[in-house]
Order: sequence, then C-alpha cells, then structure tokens
Amino acid sequence: MPSSPFNSRLAEVQNRQESVLCVGLDPDPDRLPPHLLEEHALPDAVIAFNTAVVDRTKAAACAYKLNLAFYEALGADGWRVLEASLAAVPDDRITIADGKRGDIGNSARFYARATFEQLGFDACTVSGYMGRDSVAPFLEFGDTAVFLLVRTSNPGARDFQEITCGREPFYLHVARTARIWDDGLPGTIGYVVGATDTEALRKVRKACPEQPLLIPGVGAQGGDAHAIMRIAENGSGPVIINSSRSIIYASSGRDFAEAAGEAAETLRARLQEARG
Amino acid sequence: MPSSPFNSRLAEVQNRQESVLCVGLDPDPDRLPPHLLEEHALPDAVIAFNTAVVDRTKAAACAYKLNLAFYEALGADGWRVLEASLAAVPDDRITIADGKRGDIGNSARFYARATFEQLGFDACTVSGYMGRDSVAPFLEFGDTAVFLLVRTSNPGARDFQEITCGREPFYLHVARTARIWDDGLPGTIGYVVGATDTEALRKVRKACPEQPLLIPGVGAQGGDAHAIMRIAENGSGPVIINSSRSIIYASSGRDFAEAAGEAAETLRARLQEARG
Repeated sequence: MPSSPFNSRLAEVQNRQESVLCVGLDPDPDRLPPHLLEEHALPDAVIAFNTAVVDRTKAAACAYKLNLAFYEALGADGWRVLEASLAAVPDDRITIADGKRGDIGNSARFYARATFEQLGFDACTVSGYMGRDSVAPFLEFGDTAVFLLVRTSNPGARDFQEITCGREPFYLHVARTARIWDDGLPGTIGYVVGATDTEALRKVRKACPEQPLLIPGVGAQGGDAHAIMRIAENGSGPVIINSSRSIIYASSGRDFAEAAGEAAETLRARLQEARG
Repeated sequence: MPSSPFNSRLAEVQNRQESVLCVGLDPDPDRLPPHLLEEHALPDAVIAFNTAVVDRTKAAACAYKLNLAFYEALGADGWRVLEASLAAVPDDRITIADGKRGDIGNSARFYARATFEQLGFDACTVSGYMGRDSVAPFLEFGDTAVFLLVRTSNPGARDFQEITCGREPFYLHVARTARIWDDGLPGTIGYVVGATDTEALRKVRKACPEQPLLIPGVGAQGGDAHAIMRIAENGSGPVIINSSRSIIYASSGRDFAEAAGEAAETLRARLQEARG
C-alpha cells in the first residue's frame, strides 16, 4: 500500500497518466539536433530541446529526471537552463534531480535546500557512502523522495556494490540498512536499482517490498520490460522506470521531438502491458 | 617519493609555503560577518568574505578547498561566486572542488570538465560507490588529483564504511581497490580520510603509503595535529590537512579576516612542528 505523501502523489500521477515512465533529460551538446545549435547559443539550444521533448513526451511520462552534470557543464548558464527546463514540465508530473549528492551537516542541508526549495524538484538521487546523516537532511521536505544509489548498472558497480558483506552483497546491505531512514521524517526513501541485473533487482525487491524503486537502464525498445516490471511490482512500493538517451535522441533531425514522443509512447505502452 | 605530476606540484608549494594546511572556504550565510551582509547582497557578501579570508590566510596555506554545496545554494549566482572566489586564490596554490560527485559515463565526464577545464580546479573529491568507471573520467586531466572518499569523520560513517568485508573494514577495501586506478592516466588518485579516527588513518596509510591524503576535521587549535601528522607522514605520499570553520569563522566581527589569518598561521605552525 503506498502510504507516504510522495508515494500517494506518485500513484495519483501514474494512474492518471497510465504510465510508470520517467524521461531522462540529459542534454549532451554533442547529440543535440544540429539545427538547434545553428539557431541558438548552446544554453538556449538546450532549453529549446528540453522544452520540445517535454511537450511531445508529457502524455506518456509520469516523471522527468534531470542529470545535473549536464547542466553544471553549462557553467554560469546552467542554473537558468535548469529552471527553464523545469518550467517546461507540467506541474503535476514528478521531477527528479539526478545529482547523486552525498555530504553531511550543513553541506547536505544546502544541497537539499537548493534541490527542493530553490529549484522545486520533487525527488533527488543521493549517494549514501557517508551513511545516514548524509541522507537525513534530504528527508526533511514535505512530500518529496530521496532515491539512494543501491545497485547501479555500470561495469564498475562490481568493484564495491557486489562484494560480500556477511552473507549478502554490499548493495543489499545498503538497501536493508537504509529502509528505515525515513521513519518519522516527512520525506520518503527509495532506491536506485539498475535494470541490467534482474537478479539484484529481485533481491532488493524481496528485502524491501515497500520502498519506491527508480529503475534506469531500460531502452526504448523495452525488450526486458516485462521481466523488470514483474520483479519490481512484486511488492507494494511504487516503481518508476527511467529511459533517457533512447527517447530523447531517437532522432537528431528536425523531427527529434516527434521521434522522442513516439519512443516514449512505445515504451510507456510496453511497460503498462507488463504491469500486473 | 612524490612522483606524479600532481604530487610534484603539491610538494613544491608545500615546501615553498612551509605548510600542509588547506583552508576550507565554506561560506554559510548564517555565519558570515553581519556587516558584510549589510553592505552587500548575499552573493557579493560571499565574494567579499572569501576574498578577504584568502588574502589574510594565503601566507599560511598551501591549498584551498571549496565545498560546492555552499555555492550551489546561491542559485544562479553560484557559478559567478565560485569563479570570483577561485580568482582570489593565488595561482600557485592548490584548489580543491569538494563536490563528492560520483556518476558514470558522460555524466562523470561533464562533471570532470566543469571542474577542471571550465572552473580550473586542481583537484576534486569524488564518491566511489559506483566503482572505477565513476572515477576514471576525473583522472584524464594533466596534473590534477581526485580525492576519493575513504573514511569520513561523521557518525554515519559507521553505517557502511566500518562494516566488515572479508577481514577488513569496507573503507580499507575501498582504499586498497582504488590504489591502482590512476595507473596509466595523467591524474593522481588520493584519499579523503577524516582526522577523528586515527586508527582508520593508520590502517589506510599502512595499506597505501604512496597515495596523497586529504585529511579534514583538524580544528584550529590542532590539539591532535602531532598524532595525525605522525601517522599520515608514515609513507611517501603527500598530506593535506584541511580546516574550515575554525579558521574562516574565527571571528564574526570586522576583524574576521585578521582572525582567520591568525588561526591559519597557528595551525600551520603546529602542523609544521609536527612534521618529521
């Protein structure tokens, strides 16, 4: 049963949109449609790109995830582009700041305020290496959520996440430990678990059936959508499936936004089919 | 023997300044001298504060560490304040971006470019939960360094860093694993190890005698400076000792910069005394 303020809000938008799809707005200057870069300076080309992509994908999306690295790389213009991109997202969709921040004390509080109060995101990703006091400051804001990195889908994930601690892999220890970190706080704790390792996803879902999961790494074709949804929905916690490049770079021509919209709708429908 | 380009440069500045002290420029609006906030809007008050603190501490400091959270919290002005603060630091001091970033692929590359190319920092801190491919993109830039979080000094550090993996604590596994991550790359890998747990510091230094260490958590009084320096210098890798609040907030009056300068010089001298 979704019960936290964030979970209720997410369930409402997912039901209304009939979608668990999150579109990742990760604007790489090298992959933007060339005509946008001819017509605009880079920061404004990114705004034009994001605005058009959101407009054509919003019918299929319950959420948008913005990886902050791509905005930070725009330098002094980054903040403005971030604000303009967020403004393009309808108010009733979930916005996720993918910054993977992880610091303590006042630093964590400042990151959290920038994310939730100044920029008005609904959720963010956090790296938990420093432990509970690096995550808690992000859980002090109303109906928001923090997605803690648990099992990522990159090759380097094996370096630390897969090592054995006691009888379980480290990522599972992280998930089990953090499960109660939102107790008594208004925010909700959720987990980032990559789509490429379905066995890891199964273990996390079994150990933590109530936590929201943010699952990146599902391509627009969604070949494994059925398997992933079957595992992830094996619990009461909500599921958000993120796809970035295969949607936003579906075409680099003048039809980029239409192509993104079609890719988003295809994946939305596949994921919806796969739901219980 | 310091051998990497970064280590050589650090040794040169540490010898010249007779200092291993890094001053942390973490400007918290609630702790800035009130007269600065009366005279300037917040972003410019931060620039005035950092500029004056650098001017009075630079004789005692080999490096400056800027925690990016405090700049990100300034919103659209953050980048400008960061650039102006960096411009106040003499070119021949080391500058460290304390962002604890940790992402992969293009995201990591974009963070690295923003840090080293656009802002021109000499080093940065990185969180390694995602493994080698989250750190490697930061090691592709000339005579720079990446300080990987190994053992932090906050209470939550026990949640994950201290759990037992095989026969050693997890933080030591991280340190041992990452030791070779700069092989064949121009950058240098170093470690962040907090000053509060001298036993952890001893273990890391013993396992990794050649890596540079960035050690935060030494107060201006430097009561434990001798013990820390004795352990940290028990190897060929260089040592940077960071102190933030106890230096930059030594006074909140009109004498804040002089007080910061005195606190920095006191700690510099104590650390220097403690060196072998």
